[in-house]
Amino acid sequence: MAESFDRIWRNARLATLRGDLPDLGVVERGVIAMRDGRIVFAGNSSGFPIDADAPERIDCEGRWITPGLVDCHTHLVFGGNRAHEFELRLQGVSYEEIARAGGGIVSTVAATRAASEAELVAGALPRLDALIGEGATTIEIKSGYGLNTETEMRQLSAARAVSRSRPVSVRTTFLGAHALPPEANGNKDRYIDLVCREMLPAVARAGLADAVDAFMEGIAFSRDQTARVFSAAKALGLPVKLHADQLSNLGGAALASEFSALSADHLEHTDEAGVTAMARANAVAVLLPGAFYFIRETTKPPVELFRAYGVKMAIATDCNPGSSPLTSLLLAMNMGATLFRMTVAECLAGVTREGARALGILGETGTLEAGKRCDLAIWDIDRPAELIYRMGFNPLQSRVWMGR
Amino acid sequence: MAESFDRIWRNARLATLRGDLPDLGVVERGVIAMRDGRIVFAGNSSGFPIDADAPERIDCEGRWITPGLVDCHTHLVFGGNRAHEFELRLQGVSYEEIARAGGGIVSTVAATRAASEAELVAGALPRLDALIGEGATTIEIKSGYGLNTETEMRQLSAARAVSRSRPVSVRTTFLGAHALPPEANGNKDRYIDLVCREMLPAVARAGLADAVDAFMEGIAFSRDQTARVFSAAKALGLPVKLHADQLSNLGGAALASEFSALSADHLEHTDEAGVTAMARANAVAVLLPGAFYFIRETTKPPVELFRAYGVKMAIATDCNPGSSPLTSLLLAMNMGATLFRMTVAECLAGVTREGARALGILGETGTLEAGKRCDLAIWDIDRPAELIYRMGFNPLQSRVWMGR
Ligand SMILES: [Zn+2]
Ligand SMILES: [Zn+2]
Repeated sequence: MAESFDRIWRNARLATLRGDLPDLGVVERGVIAMRDGRIVFAGNSSGFPIDADAPERIDCEGRWITPGLVDCHTHLVFGGNRAHEFELRLQGVSYEEIARAGGGIVSTVAATRAASEAELVAGALPRLDALIGEGATTIEIKSGYGLNTETEMRQLSAARAVSRSRPVSVRTTFLGAHALPPEANGNKDRYIDLVCREMLPAVARAGLADAVDAFMEGIAFSRDQTARVFSAAKALGLPVKLHADQLSNLGGAALASEFSALSADHLEHTDEAGVTAMARANAVAVLLPGAFYFIRETTKPPVELFRAYGVKMAIATDCNPGSSPLTSLLLAMNMGATLFRMTVAECLAGVTREGARALGILGETGTLEAGKRCDLAIWDIDRPAELIYRMGFNPLQSRVWMGR
Repeated sequence: MAESFDRIWRNARLATLRGDLPDLGVVERGVIAMRDGRIVFAGNSSGFPIDADAPERIDCEGRWITPGLVDCHTHLVFGGNRAHEFELRLQGVSYEEIARAGGGIVSTVAATRAASEAELVAGALPRLDALIGEGATTIEIKSGYGLNTETEMRQLSAARAVSRSRPVSVRTTFLGAHALPPEANGNKDRYIDLVCREMLPAVARAGLADAVDAFMEGIAFSRDQTARVFSAAKALGLPVKLHADQLSNLGGAALASEFSALSADHLEHTDEAGVTAMARANAVAVLLPGAFYFIRETTKPPVELFRAYGVKMAIATDCNPGSSPLTSLLLAMNMGATLFRMTVAECLAGVTREGARALGILGETGTLEAGKRCDLAIWDIDRPAELIYRMGFNPLQSRVWMGR
């Protein structure tokens, strides 16, 4: 009896991104077969049973199929709008004046605290839709604009809620140690106590976070404070990741590696010691060229060192209102190539396989392989390089999440 | 009897971009009334006749309306695809090796020569559609990949043809003096003879060009060669514009001004003498931040000098396969702000009023004013700054070209 599937995509060219194949893992004359939302076959048509049966057989007319895209670092859920602050900055108003007038991250925290969960969801959906419209099927969303237990939990709850409004997988990350709230009156240690003793246990109990993140930087939290958050996360069985070495080298990459972090993110100022630590810990380097571009950073992450030591590189949007109001993984890839000189294969792996790895879900998505979720992006292009080369152009023909 | 219109847009906020109003020329509680494709009224509802009659009355629900966008510098019509060249460059292959392998502009010229007019149109439409999808209503398209009379004319004819396939106004520019074709064997003067004596008269006779452009640069044509092209254009009654001072300061801005150019474009290396010449000639400075970004230029155009001397600044995509594969005016504005520190008002004027001025059609479009074409972009935004601040996000709600 012929094997039967729910759906078959045939006459496609596959960029499988399989880790055991070189570069993009290209398969010509490709077929993907799906059953119960999972890929059952992804390969050359010669290896596919001729008499395979499926109620839906889609002729891809030679189009390219990549894994559905993964945005592994976003702050997609927040209140308020910082466009006016951007406008003022261009008029020469200083950060200090904007901060004194209640602008900056403080304004996002105030607006997030003032917003209901429904309002947070409504505000996030247009941003999510922009990502989905370019083929994203998995998105990470961080908290970090609540900075108190109630609002951090509401932000994470809103992040879970957006995944019920759209056909997309959401991974949530608790980022209580993002910034110091105004009511902390400058006492970072006491705020970290609150994060570790109250927020984190409450978030973990409610099952609202898949991972825990922190912002280790002179303007945020120290190495010791970050280590306390990570210890508390580990005690609760939650994996960690870190905003590391973005503005200065404080050894963030190394600290993250000590705690077996899934990823260290930003990394503009990471040195060779940090890179080797990441290599030993198998931590993914999540590069965020949108933030690099938007804040006009000039020090680039050490891409050559990551290559030399075999550290995997992901690319994400870092979508956030202050330093990266970016909702395009295609543009993030172009920036990775143009600004960081990443190759086409590195860029595309960065928003698929390595993005999934940075979220600890490489077994579930990120490549076109039997057993994984059937998350696909189908493109009207002649070659994958077009996805990275073009700017402000979206050749997505269709998108499949969990086989649908 | 009540005045009657074909269509009324009410309950809108207008960024009129009128030159006699400060900044964006904002009108709250705005109304636009259209008759026969023209704006008859654009202003506050208090000045609009209450009993005005129109078969169609559109409630804009408080949305913002700007003039339809103008992309005043593109090379939208071309053959071939240079994505693979981009991919090779990222792998470390040198420009020289790519050129030896038939890459670079030569490959675009060969592909353009090999393409029929229908093929050129089909290739351009997806790029045009991306621009239209963000609210563009007027687009300039240059020749310059034919470099012989027949192909230059076919390219211009294709540019005219795309405007018959889509609801958009196209202005064509003859750019025969873009590069030296291979068959010229390095003889630039003889090629310029061909441009002036054969191509330009043929193009003018056929009515295929609204203006004439040249590329004055070490790697392209000299000041004298450019002046010969401009003299020939002037003799035929065609206005000129110039790719000037992009990679070095050869006095292109000043030469363009001598010939009363509509605009000088790029201008990264223009000095104060060039700026003052442009100010005297009322030439528009067309800034192309997409090319600046893509080729990783580091010298910025002298925005402060343009402001100081009152030179008007436009922003355009420079959409072309070699140095700016960009089809987003929203992203071009973000780059103008982020990379060149242009203000929100300058960016938005740059893709509307000043873009129209750079094409010599400010009397027709580019602002919301009675008498002009009813070219509108209607946006789902809270304030115009969002159009510039966000990256990879398209809040266009609808678009109107010639009242439809
Ligand atoms: Zn971040
Ligand atoms: Zn150009």
